Amino acid sequence: MLLDNAISWLDTALMDQLSAPGLLATTPEADYGSWVLAGVLLSLIVVYLASKLGGELSKRLNLPPVLGELVGGVIVGISALHLLMFPENSAAATDSVIMTGLQWLGNLDSEAMIHIFQSQSEVISVLAELGVIVLLFEIGLESDLRELTKVGYQAAIVAVVGVAAPFILGTVGLVTLFHVPVIPAVFAGAALTATSIGITSKVLSELGHLKSTEGQIIVGAAVIDDVLGIIILAVVASLAKTGDVDLLNVVYLIVSASGFLLGSVLLGKFFNKSFVAIADKLQTRGALLIPAFTFALVMAFLANVIHLEAILGAFAAGLVLDETDKRKELDQQVMPIADILVPIFFVTVGAKADLSVLNPAIAENRAGLVIATFLIAVAIIGKVVTGWAVFGQEGVNRLAIGIGMIPRGEVGLVFAGIGTASGVLDKPLEAAIIVMVILTTFVAPPLLQWSLKDQAEATPEEAPVG
Amino acid sequence: MLLDNAISWLDTALMDQLSAPGLLATTPEADYGSWVLAGVLLSLIVVYLASKLGGELSKRLNLPPVLGELVGGVIVGISALHLLMFPENSAAATDSVIMTGLQWLGNLDSEAMIHIFQSQSEVISVLAELGVIVLLFEIGLESDLRELTKVGYQAAIVAVVGVAAPFILGTVGLVTLFHVPVIPAVFAGAALTATSIGITSKVLSELGHLKSTEGQIIVGAAVIDDVLGIIILAVVASLAKTGDVDLLNVVYLIVSASGFLLGSVLLGKFFNKSFVAIADKLQTRGALLIPAFTFALVMAFLANVIHLEAILGAFAAGLVLDETDKRKELDQQVMPIADILVPIFFVTVGAKADLSVLNPAIAENRAGLVIATFLIAVAIIGKVVTGWAVFGQEGVNRLAIGIGMIPRGEVGLVFAGIGTASGVLDKPLEAAIIVMVILTTFVAPPLLQWSLKDQAEATPEEAPVG
Repeated sequence: MLLDNAISWLDTALMDQLSAPGLLATTPEADYGSWVLAGVLLSLIVVYLASKLGGELSKRLNLPPVLGELVGGVIVGISALHLLMFPENSAAATDSVIMTGLQWLGNLDSEAMIHIFQSQSEVISVLAELGVIVLLFEIGLESDLRELTKVGYQAAIVAVVGVAAPFILGTVGLVTLFHVPVIPAVFAGAALTATSIGITSKVLSELGHLKSTEGQIIVGAAVIDDVLGIIILAVVASLAKTGDVDLLNVVYLIVSASGFLLGSVLLGKFFNKSFVAIADKLQTRGALLIPAFTFALVMAFLANVIHLEAILGAFAAGLVLDETDKRKELDQQVMPIADILVPIFFVTVGAKADLSVLNPAIAENRAGLVIATFLIAVAIIGKVVTGWAVFGQEGVNRLAIGIGMIPRGEVGLVFAGIGTASGVLDKPLEAAIIVMVILTTFVAPPLLQWSLKDQAEATPEEAPVG
Repeated sequence: MLLDNAISWLDTALMDQLSAPGLLATTPEADYGSWVLAGVLLSLIVVYLASKLGGELSKRLNLPPVLGELVGGVIVGISALHLLMFPENSAAATDSVIMTGLQWLGNLDSEAMIHIFQSQSEVISVLAELGVIVLLFEIGLESDLRELTKVGYQAAIVAVVGVAAPFILGTVGLVTLFHVPVIPAVFAGAALTATSIGITSKVLSELGHLKSTEGQIIVGAAVIDDVLGIIILAVVASLAKTGDVDLLNVVYLIVSASGFLLGSVLLGKFFNKSFVAIADKLQTRGALLIPAFTFALVMAFLANVIHLEAILGAFAAGLVLDETDKRKELDQQVMPIADILVPIFFVTVGAKADLSVLNPAIAENRAGLVIATFLIAVAIIGKVVTGWAVFGQEGVNRLAIGIGMIPRGEVGLVFAGIGTASGVLDKPLEAAIIVMVILTTFVAPPLLQWSLKDQAEATPEEAPVG
């Protein structure tokens, strides 16, 4: 009894201590600090094991490592081992193996479990977002603004075709073949337009193709696609809500997006020199890295605030800093940060993908699977054709460009999520969209590698830094 | 009206999108995802600006940069600008300038504000904890196990004297001079025993003195002091709770702590080779960094779970990996990660330090300030004497060793926090402990630099990596 008391006292004491610097805790929540940290540490350990095992296995099978990281995420996530769980998947704390383990270790009550699970998931989600921000910053640093503007028109055409083709094919097909009402069909069509810039650019980087003409067209098109996606989302959302399209809002988005991207490039020309001057003047550790990283965070924040995506800001920041003579040095310092943050993003995407919608043994999945087959066909065809929209580039690998636009990734899921939240999508159509997103995401990396395999310029950037 | 509707719709949509990969959100909390990210981005921007401005200014004034980072934190924190606020300081969301800014940008209701403030603070606190974990991992990598064992006895003696002297002086002084009852006096005495390994080791590293005999004695003593501190905390806590000391618990802590530290060193000898073998076999990015980082996280988790501090585990992991031939390469890759994570820790410590207890204009502070003066004297004298406990080391800088043990940092605050939570400490005594902690923390870096300034071996490690 005495021992129990002392230990429970000690627990509280140590929780506080370990929640340092969350000290002088007066709120009860702060008492869980040590357990939140323990949960985050365990989750990160799971993330790194999954990403390394998956990535290495994928590499041995001659597939892009990022595919293995996604699959590793699926295995530790909601679809299999239940180690990495998130409240968004309407999982409870007790569904998470990590949380059950902590409960066993710490004798936690259910209130503590709920709080710790929430906090830990929130931290991992934000780390994943910081991961994709750093990824796009790195991609920006590795991209060449001059190259990118050189293929700007082609990228824009690829993006526009890649939005129009699947949208029209999908919407019309759903209405005529499956007798889906117009508004849900438009929603599903919109979900088909997305391109996951994160997954595509990571594969290109892994294959050493980021700087090839194809790579730059794909990245450029994916960036433009992201902007178009945000505009389409606004249109579709207001259509679903009011049955009307709010033109003013659309104009606002187009103007702010173009203004942001152009503005950051122009600002870049000015900021370049002052950036180098600032970095040269600093004498303490991180003299180059901290100003650069802060700049990326500022741009990500600005993009976020004007209703673009944070990752677009980080990409623009990378592009701007790529123009300085500190590029190489910076690249080398950002690499280890990307190494530890980026896997959190990919494993989390995999962990959150609920593959149970793919199970045909469950009767209610079947209607969705039929529609899904159609959506997948449209999703692939509608993007593959974009390669043939490229003009004025002799001998360019059109197939690779088209394939590079296939993965829908997280952006596609957003449409499904909003559609469901607004009540526009019924269960089968929602499931079909999710299946389409998962499949295009997982199928694109190996396809892209295959389509690029005969290309000469592959100098894998995969080698670890010395 | 229509525009407002569409924009609020769009807000929800974009919040979801930007909370990617927190997708398919069904819980209302997930809708705040984008704002949590925005809050975290803004907080990090504030952290980096404060740490760089403070650190650089400190450097120009010929003071250790970490002092500037702490002061930078104070300026942006609860004591001045209210940019970086934490619920632990019983701050509300509306007290935070960042949160007010987000509220203005996003038209957030008070429920959203509370949730976003909580989540954002939780994320920053965990990032700060990861920061001090990475710091101790780096310090471990930079420390030499052989050197450390060579000065092991001296470090142990310094630690024991540095615990005993201030404890006895403080407790006896409080009882006899200030007529404080025994139990609160014991609590305050216990708070005097702590040493902040983070602050001391960072200053040593900045001054290029980490590997000197003095540096290794201080780091070794600070590690042992941390373990002793945890044991003292257990004793004092059970004393306060039951009026009795639970010997079994004390024995458990001593055994587990020694077992952990010895075990990790022995494990290290075995793990060394397999670690290099694993790192050599991996072919994907982060081949060296990810296994090393995962190892550090595992050790931090284990230390946390057996009721030691997570940072002790990370330090042990660093020590172990320091023995491999990958040391240099690893060191270089951990550096940028430390550069971006460690400032979050120091700025957060500063931001959470509430200097209002120092204001003598407030009547209720005065009693505390008188006791504080006594505690500060004991805190400094009780640690400075430890240098003269070192034996068998000719020409060692005894003053520097003593001064290196002065900063109480976050560990000292834990005692104050637990004392207050358990009702043992009255307001003036609690305030006095906080003042003592703040002052010793801020005074130690410049004193340490001064005491080491005539020493030859200073080869500042402060230069940015190229």
